[in-house]
Amino acid sequence: MSTASPAPIRIGLLGYGTVGSSVHRLLTDGAEAIERVTGQPVEVAAALVRDPGRHPGAPEGLLTTDFARLRDDPEISVVAEVMGGVDPTRRYVLELLGAGKSVVSANKQLLSRHGDELFGAAERNGVQLRFEASVCAAIPVVKVLRESMIVTTVHRIDGIVNGTTNFILTRMIQSGATYDEALAEAQSLGYAEADPTEDVTGADAAAKIAILASIAFHTRVRLEEVTHVGIDGLDLADVEHAAEFGYAVKLIASAWQSDGGVAARVHPCLLGPDHPLAAVEGAFNAVMLQGRSIREVILEGPGAGGDETATAVIGDVVAVIGTQGTGFLQHDVHYRDIGRFPADRLESPCYLRFTVDDAPGVLAQVAQQLADHSVSVAQVVQHATDEGVHIVILTHRAPEHDVRAAADGVASKEFSRSAPLMLPVLERAPR
Amino acid sequence: MSTASPAPIRIGLLGYGTVGSSVHRLLTDGAEAIERVTGQPVEVAAALVRDPGRHPGAPEGLLTTDFARLRDDPEISVVAEVMGGVDPTRRYVLELLGAGKSVVSANKQLLSRHGDELFGAAERNGVQLRFEASVCAAIPVVKVLRESMIVTTVHRIDGIVNGTTNFILTRMIQSGATYDEALAEAQSLGYAEADPTEDVTGADAAAKIAILASIAFHTRVRLEEVTHVGIDGLDLADVEHAAEFGYAVKLIASAWQSDGGVAARVHPCLLGPDHPLAAVEGAFNAVMLQGRSIREVILEGPGAGGDETATAVIGDVVAVIGTQGTGFLQHDVHYRDIGRFPADRLESPCYLRFTVDDAPGVLAQVAQQLADHSVSVAQVVQHATDEGVHIVILTHRAPEHDVRAAADGVASKEFSRSAPLMLPVLERAPR
Repeated sequence: MSTASPAPIRIGLLGYGTVGSSVHRLLTDGAEAIERVTGQPVEVAAALVRDPGRHPGAPEGLLTTDFARLRDDPEISVVAEVMGGVDPTRRYVLELLGAGKSVVSANKQLLSRHGDELFGAAERNGVQLRFEASVCAAIPVVKVLRESMIVTTVHRIDGIVNGTTNFILTRMIQSGATYDEALAEAQSLGYAEADPTEDVTGADAAAKIAILASIAFHTRVRLEEVTHVGIDGLDLADVEHAAEFGYAVKLIASAWQSDGGVAARVHPCLLGPDHPLAAVEGAFNAVMLQGRSIREVILEGPGAGGDETATAVIGDVVAVIGTQGTGFLQHDVHYRDIGRFPADRLESPCYLRFTVDDAPGVLAQVAQQLADHSVSVAQVVQHATDEGVHIVILTHRAPEHDVRAAADGVASKEFSRSAPLMLPVLERAPR
Repeated sequence: MSTASPAPIRIGLLGYGTVGSSVHRLLTDGAEAIERVTGQPVEVAAALVRDPGRHPGAPEGLLTTDFARLRDDPEISVVAEVMGGVDPTRRYVLELLGAGKSVVSANKQLLSRHGDELFGAAERNGVQLRFEASVCAAIPVVKVLRESMIVTTVHRIDGIVNGTTNFILTRMIQSGATYDEALAEAQSLGYAEADPTEDVTGADAAAKIAILASIAFHTRVRLEEVTHVGIDGLDLADVEHAAEFGYAVKLIASAWQSDGGVAARVHPCLLGPDHPLAAVEGAFNAVMLQGRSIREVILEGPGAGGDETATAVIGDVVAVIGTQGTGFLQHDVHYRDIGRFPADRLESPCYLRFTVDDAPGVLAQVAQQLADHSVSVAQVVQHATDEGVHIVILTHRAPEHDVRAAADGVASKEFSRSAPLMLPVLERAPR
């Protein structure tokens, strides 16, 4: 990359809604990273919309109502389909593939209903059709199934692939809300549509498991084949009875491969506390893959959202560029020269354990040391042991080097019997 | 693929131990799947070993003690390095890259110590160096970071990347074993080496987080930069004190990127019950990636094992072949025509809820229906409700259609007040 950049790869967008505008922004912000990886710069050339007036934030000249502008531009080699729906989307995608453009789609309905036709068209035209964003947004389950699990014979997939229903069930389990109350809450928070039918009947999950089963088992599993029972008939009493037995109720999309063939369905299931999917809460998604040579691999993350879906779209766009060009070689050599900082500059709540003499006033002196370093105490417990008294403290969030300095202060006291132990608490980012 | 297959891609192996022989077996068993995906058949041409007599199961003519046989065979285009160690492995890999062969390595020590040199050699020679198997075996975290998270600016990685220490900590938490007792158990089960130093001091985890941080942050994080505190000094008392506060102790490998640069370390940490890594038990590994546009993505699975590591090696081999040839196009069109079976032929424990009249003898009749269909009962609870009595049953494992037939039998009785509910219990495969 010491020479001048090659001409940019021009990307088209079908649609410029939440996901489309997010794809545009992330492609622009991430231009440097993409060029570092693929060796080629990328730019969004045009976005097809129905009414440019509804997207006042879009850069001038980007939006078009003329599909031919994307289809007939020989410089556009990749198009991201982020408009959704089946009609006219299907026709647009077929025409783009026919015009020799690779297509990246976030559209589970399109793929699960018309996959045969679309993939056939892609093959005939020697272009790619990628679809990571159609299932579980930023969780790269399509890539992992297609590219990492080739010889593993995945024989079973179980997934929480619909965030709306998982949010509703989580609320029913945690707060004892009825189904109707939890649905209303999901709607007010934007997790559920005004018409939640697709989600709560399991139809949305059925389209996703049809796509995953098709990839995993190398056979075209059509949407119509997937039986689905949703959560719309679920009674709070059953969620409570299940909890009494120690189980959580989750809407699970499953697919199996055995000697007898394949099967796929969506059904509410009970999950025991040791099941990895039992802990998946709120609007998150997770997929568990089982195969002989991998045992279980679980992928978890946000299953929806503009940026999350756009991240998957861009992963596919980069994959298309990479496999068209020299691709994927440049990751590991063009490293940046960036600074380092010591990890103990970070802030965490901390666990501290002091082993001290059993004498009056010791706890007060320990507390004073912490106060001297502006470390605030959340909880304290004292335990008598053979080696002395354990003073165990959980601090509030503080810079770790301050906590360590306070601990060192305690260690220097006469009443201290051994080196104190400091362990950071690993916090989860707010969801 | 109606025409004759092209000439096979010839693969070399450096080493033929647990992982190497597993790569050979999985490549042979999965030959059809690989050809379906890449359009090219694959065969293992030669495997370098020190003493062929130690591998009596290997096919005749496969093993060689002569490194030049791999290096100088112009038909070998990809070599999988599964011999481990740094010397002479480093020299072999450099010579192979110099001879124009792509290399796939499972060797975290080699990569984290000599990555600069090796990736530089790969670039100069226009070949690939892939290394999925060097971190967390079958969990495709390298691929996900390299290919799916390109524009997401992952700013934090936290991982349980050493199964030995996670097994030891899990035993301490669950059974109150001391560190020494849990280590001895891990050794007797083959989860820990006779000399467990690399694992328990955190050195092994440090090499892995150095590799992950380098990919995620696009800067070469060297092994020497990663501070590491292991679990070898950990007292059972601290594990118990932490549990009293509601926390689990885990050995966490972390890396951060901020305005101030990057940092990486390995340290025992406390994790609350809501943290996704808290539930990762035994010898399993998991990595949590945090980034603005993905929020959290978690990947979990077995972090070691011959077949598990070989699966990752083969994913890389296929990626090399795919990006060399036409690659990755043939996934979705050459579908197999395989049968279907109804999902309710599967066996599960099942949850049943009947709403019935509050009358003597009803429970006995329900139990008789189940017995008539050979469905065995694990637990029964009765609840009085406004709409009648709920009889709630957990069955033992049974074919779902038998359970449903029994439920239909109950539904046909006069005492049944509404349609029964049947939910399967999602079981986890034995670990």
